Parts: sequence; structure tokens; C-alpha cells
Amino acid sequence: MNENTSVSATAAASATPIVTAGLLVIGDEILSGRTKDKNIGYLAEYLTAIGIDLREVRLVPDIEDEIVAALDALRSRYTYVFTTGGIGPTHDDITADAVARAFGVPLDLDPRAVALLRERVGEAGLNEARLRMARIPRGAALVDNPVSKAPGFWIGNVIVMAGVPTIMQAMLDAVAPQLRTGAKVVSESVRADLREGDIGTELGDVAKAHPEVMIGSYPFADEQGRPNTNLVIRGRDPARVAAARAAVEAMLNEVRATLAGTSAS
Amino acid sequence: MNENTSVSATAAASATPIVTAGLLVIGDEILSGRTKDKNIGYLAEYLTAIGIDLREVRLVPDIEDEIVAALDALRSRYTYVFTTGGIGPTHDDITADAVARAFGVPLDLDPRAVALLRERVGEAGLNEARLRMARIPRGAALVDNPVSKAPGFWIGNVIVMAGVPTIMQAMLDAVAPQLRTGAKVVSESVRADLREGDIGTELGDVAKAHPEVMIGSYPFADEQGRPNTNLVIRGRDPARVAAARAAVEAMLNEVRATLAGTSAS
Repeated sequence: MNENTSVSATAAASATPIVTAGLLVIGDEILSGRTKDKNIGYLAEYLTAIGIDLREVRLVPDIEDEIVAALDALRSRYTYVFTTGGIGPTHDDITADAVARAFGVPLDLDPRAVALLRERVGEAGLNEARLRMARIPRGAALVDNPVSKAPGFWIGNVIVMAGVPTIMQAMLDAVAPQLRTGAKVVSESVRADLREGDIGTELGDVAKAHPEVMIGSYPFADEQGRPNTNLVIRGRDPARVAAARAAVEAMLNEVRATLAGTSAS
Repeated sequence: MNENTSVSATAAASATPIVTAGLLVIGDEILSGRTKDKNIGYLAEYLTAIGIDLREVRLVPDIEDEIVAALDALRSRYTYVFTTGGIGPTHDDITADAVARAFGVPLDLDPRAVALLRERVGEAGLNEARLRMARIPRGAALVDNPVSKAPGFWIGNVIVMAGVPTIMQAMLDAVAPQLRTGAKVVSESVRADLREGDIGTELGDVAKAHPEVMIGSYPFADEQGRPNTNLVIRGRDPARVAAARAAVEAMLNEVRATLAGTSAS
């Protein structure tokens, strides 16, 4: 690899700031195992693809103090905090209350949200329960819900979304164009055709020699059920990722040759 | 319901202490979305079934400071902390290091663990990488791994397991008989055949009148794609859960009658 190429590519990459995110999943039903979360994996993949680093996820129950504490921990650390769950019409939906408390603002009945719900259920359907979904922390922007109208909202660096996956996904599509994004992480995957334990030391040496990329090692069982390993090289600078990949491949060839020599001897 | 039955059942239930747990999921590959976690839902359901309350889950990257901070936060709050991920043979497997640091104990090469690995891969296969998996914080008990031998471990109230779901599940089976468990949570589910927004206020009243149980409301689309709601009543005292269930069903009948009256008028 040409050293100059690498340096200039790095300079370009580092000019783009790193944008980070935390995710707060809210709901007793996830912690009891009754409902299996489908949002963490979706959001993780989505944010990675648009250049936002998901750095931490927390799952907490429907307890206001717990939600507020987790929100405060996450929103002080990351560029954005996404929340899922707890914005429906029933007594156990307390996310809006917790967010308003965390930001120290009143939780008002929002006329924009009321209008959206009226459009959906009519004046007669606009009962006390449904009006809960129109309580929005003062100063928040609404997040469009094309599926069932009841909006999410965005206040400070916190984006509050529904827990139902189809609605969460639609809300994420609605906010994504307005999110700041950083340099995308480039990821390359190499199938080792070796067991993780056969390459651990050598891979550690490659990782040490390439500190500017992250190298992950993921064991899996291949088509015949034999232990195999995927190596994933990730980084913001494509030239450095390519260089590390080349080093990983050279290392794999060496280990394979050594093992073949051992078994031949 | 007979009030006396309820009181004595409660006394019996409250004699069994509540046992809680936190879960720490460790790994860049989950936060990047490359790997979808399958352990949270499994562990949540498993612990609920044996009478342990999962109260919080955190996902953190392969960064030692982050793992230590999350471990310390969770182990001071819950009866048990389970961890998944980061105990393999490669440089990015740093869970044992983090746990040893959190407990302030040395990370020794454990002769018991070495013997297990030797049994699996033979003396020749016992290279530096595989020996990483035999580094166990001093004082920890080993957790059996019937799948691939490399053990998990248990130190203080922290139980360290593999991230690969089949291995994690086997390790959980291995430790479960030794876990303290509390009164099991009894759960009853009622299909409302009403929309969540139609019953939110009335359901809130039932919840207020039955503070000793948790009542959750979970919207779903029925077989015809119409909005419907599952109500889940959870509690440690079966008599109180049954009483709350009866109140929920009475409420649903009333709302259905009212709505039928409205549409007829």
C-alpha cells in the first residue's frame, strides 16, 4: 500500500466528525421474554449504514425513574438517543412522561398531535386514552407515523419512537434525512476456513499492527458443521481497511501453510 | 374472590424473596448490526420461568472500560448479572480481563480450564490463542460448556457465558440448578378484541384498583389485519392475578356493551 494514499484518505475521513447514538428500549414485555425485541438489530444495521455509530443499548422496564436515569446517562454521552416503546394509549405507556421529566418541561396536550389523531379516529373516537398519545413534551418536534398516525417526537438529542417494529421503522425513515451523519464505517469480511483457536495469536498481531481499524473474529459452523471463522475488518478509511484485509489474508495463508506442514510432517 | 384466600396467598408469596438479574451483552458485532442478538429473548424467558426477574439489559462494545463500568453498575443492583460474549480465543475477546479488573483479582491461567481444553484439542492444539480461553479470574467457579469445552465462569454474583447461542443455552442449563430463585411470576393473557385506544382509560382504572399486579397492554394485528389488543396480567400471587383478570374481563364486557350501544344508537 502507498503510504501517501493512506495518509490523505485518513485526513479526509477524519474531517467528517464521528456521530454516535445510544438506544433505549422500554418495556416490561421485553424483559419478561413475552415479546422478543426486533428493533435493536434493525436500528443497529440502519444506523451503521447511514454513518452513525450505535455505541450502547439499554433495556429498562416501565418504571419512570428507570427510564429517566437511563435517558440521562445516554443523552449526555451520545450525539443521539433513540427510544422505542411506551408511547401508546394505556396506563403502562409512560415514555412521554419520563422524557418530559428528564428535560424538565411540561407534558402538554399538543394541538398538532390531537389533529392527527382526530383525522384517524374522528371526534367521537378521541377519548381520554387516545388523547394520552397526544401528550408531547413542550418544545418537541413531532415524528411522522404513516402507519397509525399517533406521532413520535424529537426533543433535544432524543428521538422517541413506537415499539411496534413496523411503526418504529417508518418513524426512523421519517427522521433519518434530518440526522447528522459521520463518515461511514467500511466493513470487509474474510472467511478464514480455519478454526478461531488456530489463528487467534496471529490475528492479534495483525490487529496490533493495524490499530486504526477494528478486526472482529466470529466463529461459525460451516455447511458441513465444521468450526470456521469469519474475520471482519471495519474502519472509516477504506485504504486502511484494505491494507488490514491484505494483512489478514497473508496471515491466513501463512497459518494454512504451517498447519499443512505440521500435518505432512 | 375470598379476601382471606388472597391474604394468605400473599403472605406465602412474600415469604419467598424476589430474585433479580441484569444482563450484559458484550460485542461490537451486535452494535454494528452484523450479528442479531438471540440471547436476550432466550434468557428473559428462561429466567422468568424459573422465578428470576430480569430487570435490565445493557449492550456494550468490546471496550474494557465500558464493560467494567456496566458490570459494576449492574452487579451492585441485582442478585445476579449474566454476561454473554467475548470469551473466545481472539484479541477482541476481553470479557475475562474486564471481569477480573471489576473484581480486583488476577486473571490466572486456570489448570482446570487448561485440562478441559487439552482434552478437546490435544497438547499440540493448545496454542497461545486457545490458552486465552483458560484465563479465569482467580476465585471463580467454572461453568461447564458441553458444546466446545472452553468454560464460562462464575465469580461473586456475575456469571460469564459465551455469546454463541447454543453454548450460552448449555451454560445456562449448567448454572440454573444452583441459582437462587424467587416466587415465580404468574402471567395470564386476555385477548381484548378491542382496540387499545378503546379501553385505555378503563384499563388504567382496573390497574389502579389492582396495584399488586402488573397489567400490560400490547396491540397487535389480528388474523384479518384488524387492530386488536392483548392484555397481560402478571404477579406473584395467583389469587390476585385471577382477581385482576376477572376485573379486566368485566371491564372488557362493559366497554363492548357500550360500543355496541353507541353503534346501535
